[in-house]
Amino acid sequence: MRYFIVYAHPEPRSLNGSLKDAAVQALEQAGHEVRVSDLYAMAFKAVADAWDFPMRDAGSRLVYHRESEQAYKAGQLQPEVAREIENLLWSEVVVLQFPLWWFGPPAILKGWFDRVLVNGFAIGVPKEGTRQWLRYGEGTLAGRRGIVAVTTGGREAQFSPRGINGAIDEILFPINHGIFHYTGIQPLSPFVAFRTVRTTPQEFVQLRDRYVARLLAAGDEAPIPYRFENGGDYDEAGQLREGVAEGETGFAAHLVRTGEG
Amino acid sequence: MRYFIVYAHPEPRSLNGSLKDAAVQALEQAGHEVRVSDLYAMAFKAVADAWDFPMRDAGSRLVYHRESEQAYKAGQLQPEVAREIENLLWSEVVVLQFPLWWFGPPAILKGWFDRVLVNGFAIGVPKEGTRQWLRYGEGTLAGRRGIVAVTTGGREAQFSPRGINGAIDEILFPINHGIFHYTGIQPLSPFVAFRTVRTTPQEFVQLRDRYVARLLAAGDEAPIPYRFENGGDYDEAGQLREGVAEGETGFAAHLVRTGEG
Repeated sequence: MRYFIVYAHPEPRSLNGSLKDAAVQALEQAGHEVRVSDLYAMAFKAVADAWDFPMRDAGSRLVYHRESEQAYKAGQLQPEVAREIENLLWSEVVVLQFPLWWFGPPAILKGWFDRVLVNGFAIGVPKEGTRQWLRYGEGTLAGRRGIVAVTTGGREAQFSPRGINGAIDEILFPINHGIFHYTGIQPLSPFVAFRTVRTTPQEFVQLRDRYVARLLAAGDEAPIPYRFENGGDYDEAGQLREGVAEGETGFAAHLVRTGEG
Repeated sequence: MRYFIVYAHPEPRSLNGSLKDAAVQALEQAGHEVRVSDLYAMAFKAVADAWDFPMRDAGSRLVYHRESEQAYKAGQLQPEVAREIENLLWSEVVVLQFPLWWFGPPAILKGWFDRVLVNGFAIGVPKEGTRQWLRYGEGTLAGRRGIVAVTTGGREAQFSPRGINGAIDEILFPINHGIFHYTGIQPLSPFVAFRTVRTTPQEFVQLRDRYVARLLAAGDEAPIPYRFENGGDYDEAGQLREGVAEGETGFAAHLVRTGEG
């Protein structure tokens, strides 16, 4: 399979860096193709701004999502952005690997979302012959699988369903549901390494093996069963219909339950 | 009162820019002091990396949170970071104003979190005489209030409690709970302008007045009643004790209910 790893950590000699290196080696040894975007090593520009559109009228009012859609359709995206889109299209498995900073991805990865997932490509794609959009289960990137691989400073209990930080699955909902599922990528359950600052060498070996095993199995795992926008569970306003997850609110309501439907 | 507005939008002539300008003007006219960090205008560096620590041994392994704690304690943070910390300490109300991009803040604001909320200041502050930390209700920034002011591309129904994007309150939990409440800032309910791309001039006037009114009332509103970590609702592992929000999981379990306690 073709793995595209988007990796965001400032220190190659970190636990994150070692996990990434081990993943690349193991995947290639198993005969897979691997591409890595090491955002720090690339000095990937994090900030979405007017610089991204050298061809635009510099005096006009910048509406970023409109400008990026035009640049995309005209083949005038910055080469570094166009290359990431090409990597996404090439891939069969997308891995987002990063340390969780303030309950989200490092800014350099957030900026990758902001700049690469352009309008007309990852969002704003109409479903032909309907008044619907290709999103939340459908989209340009459908057919691919995605996995978030994250390290945390906090302990597992703090990220448990009743933990004070919020459950890790809910903290990652904006990525698993809001980016992967939104663009058609099937999200797998995340790989999480908690409290990595305390990792012993023995624990690292176990962690590394667990990570490699998860990546190697990416083609076989059942994805997180988020509901499809155009699958009948939502009304035209984008809300769960009566009778679907009746009485429930919160992120978990967007999961199909066993035995349902 | 002293308002510190952290503002992240690339276009001054945007709806966000107009709201920010109106807020500054109205607050100053009402006799308040206002500071604005316009992150795009400042070209605020979004990416947390080794450049932030010119005094460090360049050959050593970078552990960002350790390096930033040392630089903070030695008074060697980059001036742009030290100034933001000074602004936070000066403030009584912290406003984070931004467009919601991919269900989170623009990278330039995420990077502000990553770089400014340094270890030893906003996190990693021990509670004297205990084995606890000053966080989640207590902290260096206690006594302040915080408000997220956000614009969205999507419609209100999509961000409602059963909306496909996830409820806006849950999408903003990582900021309201994970940043404001974490550092001791009392979060107020967010100001949200939905579907701003369709705003008419008449609607803008209403929106602006509603925004200004919210900011002017910031001292009077009741904050979001998140539970305090050291208030008795959590066990030593950081999980809700039995009997607290019994049987509940999800972000909403961390809210104190009416009549509780």
